[in-house]
Formats: sequence, C-alpha cells, structure tokens
Amino acid sequence: MERIQIAEDLSFTRIIHGLWRLADWNMSREERLKLIEQCLDMGITTFDHADIYGGYTSDQLFGEGLALKPSLRSKMEIITKAGIALISENRPENRIKHYNTGKSHIIQSAEQSLKNLQTDYIDVLLIHRPDPFMDPAETAEAFNQLKQEGKVRHFGVSNFKRSQFNMLQSYLDFPLVTNQIELSAYQLENFEDGTLDLCQEKRIPPMAWSPLAGGQIFKQEDEKAKRLIPVLEQTGEQMGAEGIDEVLYAWLLAHPAKIMPIVGSGKAERIQAAVRSLDLKMDRQQWFDILHASMGHEVP
Amino acid sequence: MERIQIAEDLSFTRIIHGLWRLADWNMSREERLKLIEQCLDMGITTFDHADIYGGYTSDQLFGEGLALKPSLRSKMEIITKAGIALISENRPENRIKHYNTGKSHIIQSAEQSLKNLQTDYIDVLLIHRPDPFMDPAETAEAFNQLKQEGKVRHFGVSNFKRSQFNMLQSYLDFPLVTNQIELSAYQLENFEDGTLDLCQEKRIPPMAWSPLAGGQIFKQEDEKAKRLIPVLEQTGEQMGAEGIDEVLYAWLLAHPAKIMPIVGSGKAERIQAAVRSLDLKMDRQQWFDILHASMGHEVP
Amino acid sequence: MERIQIAEDLSFTRIIHGLWRLADWNMSREERLKLIEQCLDMGITTFDHADIYGGYTSDQLFGEGLALKPSLRSKMEIITKAGIALISENRPENRIKHYNTGKSHIIQSAEQSLKNLQTDYIDVLLIHRPDPFMDPAETAEAFNQLKQEGKVRHFGVSNFKRSQFNMLQSYLDFPLVTNQIELSAYQLENFEDGTLDLCQEKRIPPMAWSPLAGGQIFKQEDEKAKRLIPVLEQTGEQMGAEGIDEVLYAWLLAHPAKIMPIVGSGKAERIQAAVRSLDLKMDRQQWFDILHASMGHEVP
Repeated sequence: MERIQIAEDLSFTRIIHGLWRLADWNMSREERLKLIEQCLDMGITTFDHADIYGGYTSDQLFGEGLALKPSLRSKMEIITKAGIALISENRPENRIKHYNTGKSHIIQSAEQSLKNLQTDYIDVLLIHRPDPFMDPAETAEAFNQLKQEGKVRHFGVSNFKRSQFNMLQSYLDFPLVTNQIELSAYQLENFEDGTLDLCQEKRIPPMAWSPLAGGQIFKQEDEKAKRLIPVLEQTGEQMGAEGIDEVLYAWLLAHPAKIMPIVGSGKAERIQAAVRSLDLKMDRQQWFDILHASMGHEVP
Repeated sequence: MERIQIAEDLSFTRIIHGLWRLADWNMSREERLKLIEQCLDMGITTFDHADIYGGYTSDQLFGEGLALKPSLRSKMEIITKAGIALISENRPENRIKHYNTGKSHIIQSAEQSLKNLQTDYIDVLLIHRPDPFMDPAETAEAFNQLKQEGKVRHFGVSNFKRSQFNMLQSYLDFPLVTNQIELSAYQLENFEDGTLDLCQEKRIPPMAWSPLAGGQIFKQEDEKAKRLIPVLEQTGEQMGAEGIDEVLYAWLLAHPAKIMPIVGSGKAERIQAAVRSLDLKMDRQQWFDILHASMGHEVP
Repeated sequence: MERIQIAEDLSFTRIIHGLWRLADWNMSREERLKLIEQCLDMGITTFDHADIYGGYTSDQLFGEGLALKPSLRSKMEIITKAGIALISENRPENRIKHYNTGKSHIIQSAEQSLKNLQTDYIDVLLIHRPDPFMDPAETAEAFNQLKQEGKVRHFGVSNFKRSQFNMLQSYLDFPLVTNQIELSAYQLENFEDGTLDLCQEKRIPPMAWSPLAGGQIFKQEDEKAKRLIPVLEQTGEQMGAEGIDEVLYAWLLAHPAKIMPIVGSGKAERIQAAVRSLDLKMDRQQWFDILHASMGHEVP
C-alpha cells in the first residue's frame, strides 16, 4: 500500500485504521488479534488510538490482542492522543469534561498508553484538542521528556486551527508531524477556514477523521446529504466503485494534500472498501462535482 | 501618471484598464486599437486580462487590435490570469465550471494567452481564484517553467485569502507580486478579514476589481447603497469631483496600501473619470465618512 | 506583587490600574494623589491611560495629582494610547470619530500626554485601535522618533487581531511588547479567534480590559450572565473568594498567557478585591466550569 512519509524515519500507510469504537465491537482477545492481522494483511500498518477511546479502555483491548503476537508490533505504527479528560469511572478525579495539556498529565497519559498498548514506544502522540487553557511551554516540556526517554518518537496535534498550530509549534525544537482533522465531502470546514492550507504550507500530511461524515450522508436527513448522494452514486458508477463509501474515500485521496483517511470499522469488508478506493481514479471535474453538491452551489 | 513599483524591473500605472467585458463592447478591430491608444494617451499603460474573459475570446480581441500597431506592446504592461475552467463551446472538455491550477493547464493557458494577445511575453500571470484542489508544488513548477522560458516575467494571485497566499508563496523561490481582490467602499470584506493587512505586511500592492462595486451602489437597491450615495455626493462636492465614481476611486487611492483600481469601461469618458480621480485629495475624515456610511455605524 | 516582564528593562505589576473613568470620579487633586498612593501601597505600580479618556482630560487630572509628589513617577510605569480621534470641544478639528495613526498625530498625541501627565517619558505607548487607514511605515516612523528622543520606551497595540499585529510588527525593528484586548469570562472572542494564541506565540503578555465585562455579568440581563453567576458564586465559595469579581479576576490570572487585568475603579475596596484575587488558587476544572457556563455548553 502507498505510504506517506511523516518524518525522516517514519511513514504511515495511506489508509489508517481507527480504534475509536473498539470497545463497542465486543470482540474477544483473539478476535482483536485477528482484526489487527486482517488490517496488516490488507496493507494497513498504521493504527490510530486515543487514551479516552472506549472510556479509557480501547488501548488496553488493543494491547491485549497485540500481546498474543508481540512480534506484530514492529510491523505497525501506533498513534495515540492525550489532552482530553472525561468523566469516567476510570478517572474519578475528573469532575467535568475538560482538557489537560499540562506536563504531568501528558506524560502520565502517554505512560499509561504504553502500558495499555503493551508496547514500549508510541510512534506519534497527538494533542487531542486545542486547549484554551494551554501552557505551551509545559506541553513542550512533556514532549521533550517523552522523546528523550524514547517513549514517543514524534508529536502532532488534532483539531488545531492555524493560530493554535503556530502557537504550539513555536515552543518546539522539532516539527509537529501531522494534524488529525475532520475532513470529508460532507464537512468542508477545514477546507474552507485555512486549516488544510496550513498543512500544505507546513508540508504536514493531515489525517482525516470521519471521512464518511460519521454516517450523516447515508442517513440523508438534510439537504446537503440529499444533494451529495446522487452525485456520489453517479461518480461511483463512472469510476467503477462498489459503494459511495469508496467514492468518499477517493474524494479525500485525490486531493494533493496527502490526506490519510482513518477507517473506523471493525468489519473486514468495510475496511476493504477503503483499501479498494486507493485504486479508484477521480479526475478534477469529478472532484468538483462532489464539492459543488456539498456546497450547494458551484465555485465562484 | 503615478506608477507603482511591482518588482525591481516592473511598474504598473496607478489606474489599470480591465478588459473583462471587451467582447460585450462589439468593437471593430480599429476601435479596439483606438481604445488601447486612448488609454495610453491618458497615461494608463497597464492592461488586465484573463483567459476566460468573454468566454475565452477577450484576449484574442485585444491581440487583434494590438497587432495593428505592434510597437505599442513595449509601451504597456499586460496582466492575465489562469486557473478557472468554464463551460464554453471554446473548451468542450469542461463539463462543469471548476478550477485547474495543475502544471499543464497553467502552462497551456499562458501559452494560449501569448498567442491570443499576439505578444511573446506576459508581464504578470495571476492564479485567478484559490483552488481548493491545488497542488502548490505543481503550480510552482508551471511558474518556474514559464519564467525560465521567458514567457511570463512575474506571478501573482487573485482573490486569495491569507492562508492561501502563504501556502502558495511557500512553494516559490520568488515573491508573488500582487493580489487582485475585490475592494470598494461598498464591499469591505478584504478590508475586514485581514487580506489587505497581508498585502501591506508583504509589501504587495493590491489590484482592486469592482472598485465601483459593479454598479450596485448606483442602483441604490439596498440600505448600504442608500447610505453611501449622499455621503459620496457630499464628499464629491467638497473635493470638486465631477461624479461619485471619482469619489469611489479616490477612496481607494487615498488608502496607504497603494491600491490600483481596475477600470473596466470601454468608454473614454468613464476611463477619464478614473484618471481625474488621481488629482482629488481625500482627507482622513472624509475617508472615514465613507467607511461609516458603508458599515452603517461609526468605528468603535 | 507579582510582576510580568514586558521587555528586558521593563516589568508591569500583574494587576494594572486603569484611569479610563478618572474624570467621572470628580476627585480633588489631593484625592487623585491619594488614589495613586493607595495603588502603590497595594503593590500596583502600573497605570493605564489613553489620550482620549475623559474627553482628553484624564491624563491631565492624573498628572496634576502626580505633580503633588513627583518622586512617585520613578516608582510607577505609565501606559498610554494614541490613535483614536474623538469629537470633543478639546479637539475642534475632529468632525467625526475616526482613527489617526499618521506620524504627526501619533507624535503630537504622545507629546501632549507627556505634558498632561507631567512626566518626561511614557513607559509604553499603544496604538488604541487597528486603523483601517493605517500607513504602517508612517506609524513606525513616529515610533522610531519617539523612541530616539527618549519620550517613549516601548510600544504596543490594543484591540489588534492577528493580521493587524503581524502587519504593523513587520514595519518595526523592535518587538511590540503587549496587546491590550478585551478578555473576560463573559467575552470570549479573543480566546476563540486566535488573538490570545498569537500573544502566546509571540511571547507577549496581554493586558485585559473589561475583565469584569463592564458589569454586564452583574446585571444578569442575558442568558450568558444568568449561566455565569451561579458558577462564579460556587467557585468563589470553593476558593474562599469574597465576591464574584475576585473569581472573574482569578479566572484570567489562572490562564498561562500571563494576562494582566486592568482594574478601572476609583474605590480602594474594589481595587483591593483585584489584588486579593492574586492569592486565589483556581484549578483547571474550576477554570473549565466557568468556560462552560460562558459558552453554554461543554468543550467538544
């Protein structure tokens, strides 16, 4: 599978598997190992986690599967995130949902992730959300310590706008390697507000969360979805896609910013659809067909 | 006429003539030459084109006029644009309106412009609109090739916001020389969203399209126009202007950003009005009178 | 009192006294001196002025008080502002409210401030509002001249957004030292639009005007105020605050950006409340409690 260079010594697969809902899939330990192996067999070697997924349980579930075959660790890249604090029986100290990008929280979160994932290094650690209470000097200290100790190889962010990215970057001696943002044909915000422009300016390949818009398109409950569906279907027919999910992935993959869609499914056939979309060729006019359907008007 | 330095080896006249609607003017070849000569006689030496104007016909119409007296080429500066793809019988390959800033499209468009304009160089080539599907590395390759081949002397953009400008600039070894944006007392968007600030920060004199707001002020169909008209009239009387179009030009010319208004008329007397506005002196309080009328309230 | 380093050779007190409404307080010269001395006794050594406060009278009223004990000048830092031109019997040349950041206006305003304040130097001069008619090269000339003549030690801005800050900064050989912006738990705009991010990126401690939101919270006339009051009261009880004004100050002081709230009261007990807030400890979750109440929803 095509790989995207993230740093001199690190690349991701173009399609990334996301473990956001692993806890919901009620998989046995063996099934979790099987899911990992299926991904690897399809060529997907990059896995996206966060400390909070599944109420602070997903990374542990993944780690248990991985521990059945520890040799797989060297064949994969692991991304995880820190910085959100949820109300959870697993975090009784959290009275309300809030963000914490303080030094000790980031370090503790990363160390807990290492333990839960049953690995001794994280490939990329992301700050999960821009924290309006951020002390970037503190966050940078956490990054430096985790890097020096060999616990985390590279750092990035998620959901950061331009001012937030530039602010944190200015406190670091090394470049942030990615920004994981919501990107889909349904949700154009980061295309329109300059966030994707900054990724291209800084040569940072973005990761796309909710590349299928979390199913909102399929529900067809709003005008935008109703406009998109027939255009996606028609484009899919033109390209030989088997479903509109493939067209949605192809729309992101066709963009020059090297967008890496995150597939958050536990079903092999759904993951396979994302992988198949890599072979689809979407031309420029097809790309604008879909953009126009999403915007509700043509470009000016 | 006052000239604005655009690059070390290039200057524009403060008033620029725009050929957007040349095809609508139904001029004979001789009349087109006459229009060019009238502009030059008034001191306007800079002409603004785009590949798409007149459904891909304007530049050819201009070129035919110029060809009657080729020696005029060395007395003028020619700006043209590429990057928009229109539905047109002249471009049967375009199924929908879209943008194309790909390498081959930009080069082909510029080469076609050279042929149509009957010239062997373009002074400044602009990307017409920010392209949400832009591969800036490709666009930069096109620029480099056109520059090396002597076909285009300098490059700029049009309608670019800050993030888009910074993104493309970061892929170039030379500075973009202008941003052609909508600027008028009626349409304040680029004054308010930081686009003009970036021009001043980067020392890039902006070109103003629709400096008269495309006639929307004169129609007086909305509250903003109704507020502006009496203030423009009163300011015109104070300054000795012959019409409110002169006041609208003077409002842009008074601004310190070295704004170059584009006059898009085929009538000598309308062009002359723009030139006359160069002699009007608008003071700071008059400038704010007009700003307040446009905003509907005074500054905070 | 805690001091914030503003430049190598200048620091401000964490709490700043603002003289915006000095003219309204109808104080005798002796009372004005007493107010200054009370501030100094409480540890507040930094005083915030503007040429226009009190219809161009406040700085003179302050200067008259200071002149009763000129030795106090060396114990304080004086900030003032220029750039707004008000309709006032004291400025008959102003026909309308407007901005003026031109060279001669800035220099004249600063020189008048020196005379009115009865001092021979201003510690920091701020441009009061971003001027849509700014010639940054001219403003920079004014700054350079005032600095060379020893009349102003450092320069900053007020109410500048990112594009405006970067634009003016690009014309200066020295760093702007602060941005005085509206910041409060009630008014989140500068937290949300990247203005505060830029302060942190540029290592510029911001000054906060209207840290109590100009009393809008206390009036409880809108939903936001109604949401905030009970949360501020509860947080105040948890922290041992004597009033919700202290909680509002503490919310700004807890933020890592080194925000310096401006206390605009003439009453010693109100000023004392701000000083007391320095001893309050607000933790991260309490900070987000107040943020959530202001936003009307929790963070995403």
